[in-house]
Amino acid sequence: MVHPFDEALELAGTDSPNRLTGATHPAWANMVGPFGGMTAATLVGAIASHPEALGDPLALTVNYLAPIADGPFELLLNPVRTNRTNQHWIVELCQDGEPKTTATAVFGVHRDTWTDVEAVMPVVPAPEDVERRGQDFPIWLSRFDLRMVEGAPPLTEGEESPSSTTTLWVRDAAGRPLDYPGLAACSDIFFPRIYLRTGRLIPAGTISLTTYFHASRDELAALGDDFLLCTARALRFSRGFFDQSATLWGRDGVLLASSHQLVYFKG
Amino acid sequence: MVHPFDEALELAGTDSPNRLTGATHPAWANMVGPFGGMTAATLVGAIASHPEALGDPLALTVNYLAPIADGPFELLLNPVRTNRTNQHWIVELCQDGEPKTTATAVFGVHRDTWTDVEAVMPVVPAPEDVERRGQDFPIWLSRFDLRMVEGAPPLTEGEESPSSTTTLWVRDAAGRPLDYPGLAACSDIFFPRIYLRTGRLIPAGTISLTTYFHASRDELAALGDDFLLCTARALRFSRGFFDQSATLWGRDGVLLASSHQLVYFKG
Repeated sequence: MVHPFDEALELAGTDSPNRLTGATHPAWANMVGPFGGMTAATLVGAIASHPEALGDPLALTVNYLAPIADGPFELLLNPVRTNRTNQHWIVELCQDGEPKTTATAVFGVHRDTWTDVEAVMPVVPAPEDVERRGQDFPIWLSRFDLRMVEGAPPLTEGEESPSSTTTLWVRDAAGRPLDYPGLAACSDIFFPRIYLRTGRLIPAGTISLTTYFHASRDELAALGDDFLLCTARALRFSRGFFDQSATLWGRDGVLLASSHQLVYFKG
Repeated sequence: MVHPFDEALELAGTDSPNRLTGATHPAWANMVGPFGGMTAATLVGAIASHPEALGDPLALTVNYLAPIADGPFELLLNPVRTNRTNQHWIVELCQDGEPKTTATAVFGVHRDTWTDVEAVMPVVPAPEDVERRGQDFPIWLSRFDLRMVEGAPPLTEGEESPSSTTTLWVRDAAGRPLDYPGLAACSDIFFPRIYLRTGRLIPAGTISLTTYFHASRDELAALGDDFLLCTARALRFSRGFFDQSATLWGRDGVLLASSHQLVYFKG
């Protein structure tokens, strides 16, 4: 049986390696269109499967131009420049010829260098000691085993929080091991920070998402289907937009990815 | 007399509003090619001057594909999609038909909303109480009045620092008031964090730079030519790359921009 994440990543080739077709998958439906993390994952997976792809993802910026309608889409992949150790891509996702998502990506080859994780993982209880959150709406949330450590969505209208920080353990609910598309998806796992601060479910949506991939293939293999610790906070809310910075950690304190986004919100 | 920043921003039109020409300016020379912040500023300025530009910059991602040679360049501006309150761009900077820089940008219109600066500005001495740093190489550094508060570049080979944080006050040396291109430039003001941690001037360069613009026009006008407080730190150094997160503040504790980058380093 194919996992719904891999089903959603499936793309069909065309007469050009720079043009692929796919379709949204009902298992990843969000309020409007698919979960933005699934879109990011699809773009990473598409580049990785391109015959000219060099190495692994290093940086990805996804811009959400307009809602993706349920149904087929087309991906246009442009390998703009390939250097000795890195490669730059521009990608567009279109529906009926209309651009819905654009992205730039840097892929590259890693080398052995001086190394250090300077950021510090939050001190939190183990995922086994945190209750699993049962949440089936939007439907994509049910694909994950979520254990909320701090900053759960407000339960009472108007319940303000002085902090926008949310920290949670996340793993695939069906035991799919983490890979680069999975990491891209998890970088967008967070509900809008404006909910927490204002206690109101204000309409909000990601406009631009940037993820830096630190994890090596070995680190991903060592993690397997275990939990990721994901933590995010907003820096400033202002005039209809806020920015959010997030980090994604292995249980052993290794920073697997950092991710930032600009989010639109109403009222 | 025109300020060298405005000279460097000058672009010539062509028969299409989506194609402009410009040239690198010797006042902004870096070790190789121009200061990356000047390139980011040029892209923001080019979009802002496009006849279809909507509102002000919200998010900018600049990918540095290859060194820009001293001399002329061409900018290709693609307004991919204009929505009611925001607009998405893809931009390429080419020399002799070869892509050197790509970028995506989101511009948009602000609205009055709930607002809060959640991040906290570092507690530092006033710029008047910090000595001005005299540094004329690379030449672009001499365009700024820099006052280093924390994490100056190492003076002794091999002098390691446990922290990658650098915090400094920055203003234009010739009193040019801050605007969006100026803010874009300052988001790349930092020397590579790997210098601090290892105490070695290891070859390093920005691969991808993302900036979120929070400042309103009124906030920029209120700041004028006063100092910005800029602070940056790395999160993880790994296998030839590190990521850096930075915040840029007005003296009054208002977060004017946040900025993140992925940096390549050797050895």
